[in-house]
Amino acid sequence: MPLPLRVIDLLRHAARNHPQVEIVSRRVEGDVHRYTYSDAYRRVCSLSRALTALGVSRGDKVASLAWNTYRHLELYYGTMATGAVCHTLNPRLTADQLVWICNHADDRVLCFDASFAPLVNAAAPRLKTVTTYVLLSRTAAMAAPLIEVLDYEELLARQPSTEVDWPTPDENAPCGLCYTSGTTGDPKGVCYTPRSTLLHTWASALPDALGLSAQDTVMPVVPMFHVNAWGLPFSLPMVGAKVVFPGPALDGKSLYELCETEGVTMAAGVPTIWQGMLEHVRLKGARFGSLRRTVIGGSAAGEAMVRTFELDHDVRVLHGWGMTETSPVAAINQFTPRQRGLSANERMRLKTKQGRELFGVEMRLESEDGRELARDGVVSGRLLVRGPWVVETYQGGVAGARADGWFDTGDIATIDADGFLLIVDRAKDVIKSGGEWISSIELENAAMTHPAVLEAAVIGVPHPKWDERPLLVCVPRAGHEISREQLLAHLQPRVAKWWLPDAIEFAETLPHGATGKVLKTALRERFAAYRLHQ
Amino acid sequence: MPLPLRVIDLLRHAARNHPQVEIVSRRVEGDVHRYTYSDAYRRVCSLSRALTALGVSRGDKVASLAWNTYRHLELYYGTMATGAVCHTLNPRLTADQLVWICNHADDRVLCFDASFAPLVNAAAPRLKTVTTYVLLSRTAAMAAPLIEVLDYEELLARQPSTEVDWPTPDENAPCGLCYTSGTTGDPKGVCYTPRSTLLHTWASALPDALGLSAQDTVMPVVPMFHVNAWGLPFSLPMVGAKVVFPGPALDGKSLYELCETEGVTMAAGVPTIWQGMLEHVRLKGARFGSLRRTVIGGSAAGEAMVRTFELDHDVRVLHGWGMTETSPVAAINQFTPRQRGLSANERMRLKTKQGRELFGVEMRLESEDGRELARDGVVSGRLLVRGPWVVETYQGGVAGARADGWFDTGDIATIDADGFLLIVDRAKDVIKSGGEWISSIELENAAMTHPAVLEAAVIGVPHPKWDERPLLVCVPRAGHEISREQLLAHLQPRVAKWWLPDAIEFAETLPHGATGKVLKTALRERFAAYRLHQ
Repeated sequence: MPLPLRVIDLLRHAARNHPQVEIVSRRVEGDVHRYTYSDAYRRVCSLSRALTALGVSRGDKVASLAWNTYRHLELYYGTMATGAVCHTLNPRLTADQLVWICNHADDRVLCFDASFAPLVNAAAPRLKTVTTYVLLSRTAAMAAPLIEVLDYEELLARQPSTEVDWPTPDENAPCGLCYTSGTTGDPKGVCYTPRSTLLHTWASALPDALGLSAQDTVMPVVPMFHVNAWGLPFSLPMVGAKVVFPGPALDGKSLYELCETEGVTMAAGVPTIWQGMLEHVRLKGARFGSLRRTVIGGSAAGEAMVRTFELDHDVRVLHGWGMTETSPVAAINQFTPRQRGLSANERMRLKTKQGRELFGVEMRLESEDGRELARDGVVSGRLLVRGPWVVETYQGGVAGARADGWFDTGDIATIDADGFLLIVDRAKDVIKSGGEWISSIELENAAMTHPAVLEAAVIGVPHPKWDERPLLVCVPRAGHEISREQLLAHLQPRVAKWWLPDAIEFAETLPHGATGKVLKTALRERFAAYRLHQ
Repeated sequence: MPLPLRVIDLLRHAARNHPQVEIVSRRVEGDVHRYTYSDAYRRVCSLSRALTALGVSRGDKVASLAWNTYRHLELYYGTMATGAVCHTLNPRLTADQLVWICNHADDRVLCFDASFAPLVNAAAPRLKTVTTYVLLSRTAAMAAPLIEVLDYEELLARQPSTEVDWPTPDENAPCGLCYTSGTTGDPKGVCYTPRSTLLHTWASALPDALGLSAQDTVMPVVPMFHVNAWGLPFSLPMVGAKVVFPGPALDGKSLYELCETEGVTMAAGVPTIWQGMLEHVRLKGARFGSLRRTVIGGSAAGEAMVRTFELDHDVRVLHGWGMTETSPVAAINQFTPRQRGLSANERMRLKTKQGRELFGVEMRLESEDGRELARDGVVSGRLLVRGPWVVETYQGGVAGARADGWFDTGDIATIDADGFLLIVDRAKDVIKSGGEWISSIELENAAMTHPAVLEAAVIGVPHPKWDERPLLVCVPRAGHEISREQLLAHLQPRVAKWWLPDAIEFAETLPHGATGKVLKTALRERFAAYRLHQ
């Protein structure tokens, strides 16, 4: 029975069992492209031959700088099928960061969408290991590449699309690679293997996880260039769901329209994305025609967003948690029969938790001195995880998990008696006030329940008596006004008195990192000179 | 990431995340027992210590002769957790068969329910390797064992139930063992490993497979002594579903009552079992209060049964297919969006097919000369399967899969363009008439759509001109009468003219094998002297 697990079998399964199911993509070219699993599989057969013809062999890194489209999906499967490694690069990185990562990863081929030609041009002269550049899409407006590039479509056209007798790479050898955002220190590369990928695929599609089936039409807005788009490029072919890729058009209007025209039943993305879409829907007074579930992760969804989806739009929110190091899905908020019986208010509050651990991922709360803490929903501690799709060692041999197998997530969390995880804060974002902790996330979520607040972020600023005190930075919603006093009054009944921010500042925008999250490091720099007085 | 897969982690996960969810069992003692996943886990900790104290070590076979109850569940986990092998024995075997299998398997410990004391008494003198007998349950009426037996409850009571620091057995070493019914030749032992078991567990619980979640209350009627009760002892703890074990009471009345009192939402069993339950419900004019889905496998469910469940009772039928050699779930009949749009009649007919392959199991139809046949729903051929939970080698090194990795199921099947499998017949049961094949299963199902027919079986009998022709053996429903002519008239519009049976015989009962299926070998013996004349 020990038949090795292979990634290509996922797409092959879809092509055999769901040949006519569609993959729809908004392209960089601007149009909407549609084809089927059967077409995708044939093009992956061509692509794998093209990669071999380019000299790509087992273990070689093929990097991608691409939007969520069918071509990026082909790259995933084409590389992994041949035993090469698909290295997804985040196009929101600076050229310097990109150079560091590509050189560290030993990338050999770099495939990129037209939108990222300027970034590639800026980085190319310093890329030491890349020998081949492949342009995935061509647009009239694109910057001319300064380097020699091959054309993706031409490479494919040259190869037959008949069935390939796929090799069976070692299921524990890398097939995927993704670097963490690296807000502290150098970015670290997380390797995925066929084994970790397939176990994660089965587990993440279960009814109490994402609950994916052939009945679904799924729009992965969460980027394929980061955390494997929560594994959807693997789980959707496995179940034969229709796929709708938004490409580069991530504004609320474009996403909403694609949802409606393609009959999307489930969408997955970070809160920032949904904020844009919900704002569009609100302004237009529009409704969701087909959307039934939305998966929210990447950063915590506030209760305001949960209530809007659930109560105003009857769209079920599946809040989740994971990170690059956990493949990424580790926990999903699905209720048990007991929780279904709660009142609407209690359910909405519970929905802001990140959910229960998937079978395969084990969680543990630890005190600073390494004791296991209680699962009582009150005591918070460092969150540790372990399991067959949790990182052990980073690319280049950098230690990941501890010697005892546990990986320290860097998150501060609570877990309640029913196993529901609540991320209290990143360990480095938590505000240490007089020896006690204040959760920046909880303050932000409380602020965002005010209708005039579009976005909010809380950082700790130095305080002569309490070490640190919270500063709330707030982006008002267009056309709304709100004063410091009004906001404080709004927060008062929602958080402990000593958590109330000592200062509130208004801003037009907040800095966002490559993965769409608020960049607290940049915010701290912006307010580096900020001083509170007793 | 290559953390090894362990079976005990399933129950540990349930105990940590669903500690208060119940496992309810109708016991051999006659009462209904209830406890929680947390209780089960604590008793498994005690049991594993007790097994070690008995000298059971890694690789040792611990055999069970037991009904579906919480104690059998404990045996599964207690043995596998220590690295021993849980060998489930079919109590419907004769003493001779049991002796052959236990000696062949090298069983060391034999655990049995009181009901099976006579069988154990008959077999024990010839069991060469069993050193320890454990009585799981005690009843006033039980036959006194002739051998020295240990008391299961006493063994557990002697050991602490605190957390065990579980070992990590090789994930590719056997943890489970089950012998095929062996209707042809000697029985063959199929070994399951932690890896095959866990992959099967994830895959079989997916929305398009059994669709198991913490919302469910599941009654596994399919026996744990055979094909691991379709993996439910593993998948139910994984998802935290409430479990309802029927114990020895498998009559329609007992099953129906347990369904109703415990709020069962899903039940799993062979057609014979459902026939008894539906008959009880029909006679009583009763309704199902909570049952939403029923999984039917083991042998094909006829359209009559599908219609009764679906149209009369609004219970969704999930027809499935698998065998001891496939862990066992390989295919489940779940519709895609296209099929949901069919008419009720078309849907009911499609429901009699065994469904689509799970991702992980690949199916292939082959002609007698080894060519791959078309997936057109018309051409039938030998069904081959392969995948990480399909047998490779039987216990004792007996060859299972072919050198190319494919396992020949011995079934004749068609697969349609949407991937739906239809088992036409067992290769050995198909009736070869004038060089063409007649499906005994299809004829039986057609006969069973007549309201006066309780059960039907078709075998081939020698014919001077056509080699073989079908003989239909029919059990009329109590209180009904039906003539040969009426039955033929009923069949005429339902099957091809040349398929019509040449002879019809009535019987009070049909012989059933150890797994509840009609024993065609016994039926052929009963009609060995039967001759048809041209």
